[in-house]
Amino acid sequence: MPANMTDDTLDKRKAQARAWFESLRDEICAAFERLEDEAPAMPQTAALPAGRFVRTPWQRTDHNGEAGGGGVMSMMHGRLFEKVGVHCSTVHGEFAPEFRAQIPGAADDPRFWASGISLIAHLHNPNIPAVHMNTRFVVTTKAWFGGGADLTPVLDARRTQSDPDTLAFHAAMRAPCDAHQAVADYGRFKTWCDEYFFLKHRNEPRGIGGIFYDYLESDWDKTFAFTQDVGRAFLGIYPKLVRANFATPWSDKEREEQLVRRGRYVEYNLLYDRGTIFGLKTGGNVESILSSMPPVVKWP
Amino acid sequence: MPANMTDDTLDKRKAQARAWFESLRDEICAAFERLEDEAPAMPQTAALPAGRFVRTPWQRTDHNGEAGGGGVMSMMHGRLFEKVGVHCSTVHGEFAPEFRAQIPGAADDPRFWASGISLIAHLHNPNIPAVHMNTRFVVTTKAWFGGGADLTPVLDARRTQSDPDTLAFHAAMRAPCDAHQAVADYGRFKTWCDEYFFLKHRNEPRGIGGIFYDYLESDWDKTFAFTQDVGRAFLGIYPKLVRANFATPWSDKEREEQLVRRGRYVEYNLLYDRGTIFGLKTGGNVESILSSMPPVVKWP
Repeated sequence: MPANMTDDTLDKRKAQARAWFESLRDEICAAFERLEDEAPAMPQTAALPAGRFVRTPWQRTDHNGEAGGGGVMSMMHGRLFEKVGVHCSTVHGEFAPEFRAQIPGAADDPRFWASGISLIAHLHNPNIPAVHMNTRFVVTTKAWFGGGADLTPVLDARRTQSDPDTLAFHAAMRAPCDAHQAVADYGRFKTWCDEYFFLKHRNEPRGIGGIFYDYLESDWDKTFAFTQDVGRAFLGIYPKLVRANFATPWSDKEREEQLVRRGRYVEYNLLYDRGTIFGLKTGGNVESILSSMPPVVKWP
Repeated sequence: MPANMTDDTLDKRKAQARAWFESLRDEICAAFERLEDEAPAMPQTAALPAGRFVRTPWQRTDHNGEAGGGGVMSMMHGRLFEKVGVHCSTVHGEFAPEFRAQIPGAADDPRFWASGISLIAHLHNPNIPAVHMNTRFVVTTKAWFGGGADLTPVLDARRTQSDPDTLAFHAAMRAPCDAHQAVADYGRFKTWCDEYFFLKHRNEPRGIGGIFYDYLESDWDKTFAFTQDVGRAFLGIYPKLVRANFATPWSDKEREEQLVRRGRYVEYNLLYDRGTIFGLKTGGNVESILSSMPPVVKWP
């Protein structure tokens, strides 16, 4: 338990954080389902019905064999969203010995509790960027928030810092940082995102960036308020970007470019993404972790 | 330089090994091109011309900035082979400090030389198994052969130990081991293969197995002769398996199963394959290393 909290305070905070992540999930899913209804018929996807999320609960067993919480996968395969997952999980247990040194506050007491929301969206229309968003509250002998959101336009012509989608996404991610300057530093979080979502072996960025932050533990009320505003900022901007592009037709050549670009996404997730690798090595829910993989990919 | 060889002997052996890998490459490419010509027209691929290998040379720069050898990629996209690479490389340099401890004989003297052949084939027809073969000669202060071959049927119904393809492949891989018992142990090499090509996060094997061996350094003439016979065994069996299946029609459902199964191949290569991860982290030729990725993959 973090030294600066009573049991009672901590329990309330855990419940509040979890309730927030789940209510954000509900709002995002509702917004994405509305987009499925609104989206105009496009030649390549006209035969598909408007999608609806399907929820699948899962349970986790800790490495010591005890119950360790679980989560709910929310997956949608629609006519606009080719594959999107919006997952909430609330897990607890003990870190296995080989991971304790890597986790703040876990070296001497391996018990942990973590709750979060994680989202990855792959669209049919290559004009619409793919996106990732994740925020979480983690408790060991410390307690902190982490997360962020980053945008991955899939057409080279749209992967620029001057693209209107890029400008709008960066502005949206800046807003919660500027509104919470006591705990958030936009410049640092933007750079952290650029450095984190980078494919070293190809010397290329995954997308156009966004924000990434971790280990925010200075002031619970303020860091929680910031994390909530990051979620709201995502909910505010991403549906707008989808609407701005969902009526733009695409060619077979653009679809091909998208499928190849998705290969980079797979390479990133399996070679670098801490959450994916950590989850797979610690007996996480494989189906949920790998639900982030794009639905169709090409390495021609 | 290995303690038990003179400079002159070592140079001859390097030249012999390299010449063998390159002549095996030529034979395999010729055999696969003949299969492209022989293959019957199938509904899904009838419009495609018989494939021919395209060779692309590449050069390597060592981590210290010096020239470090290179290789030739041989890629074919045909009407039978959807994507196949048969690569030879001969490289040299110094292992970066962080890798020296992992490589036999490199802890005190980081210089290395390595030559090898590496092959991965993905077929259009889901009835034909995918396959991997790799053999190499590596020189540090030690000198050894390593390699193997393993078969990955992509349809569940064919991924059994009693399938005729499985039985024929295992028999073919047993033969060179039995013929070179002074240096090869079929039981050990088969088990090594099963353990190595295993997806821990899914608790499932990549394919039906084969053989895997490494650090064979006891007797150069015998280990080289064994390694040559492994290459010949591959050349003897794989075209037979292709021919046995290439006239079998397939359904959309089987194609879908193949594309999903290929996702496991990607997961394996990026999460576990030593050659892939090592190559990408040591500034290897990205295009050549990742040419093993399947041409089309689904994570539905």
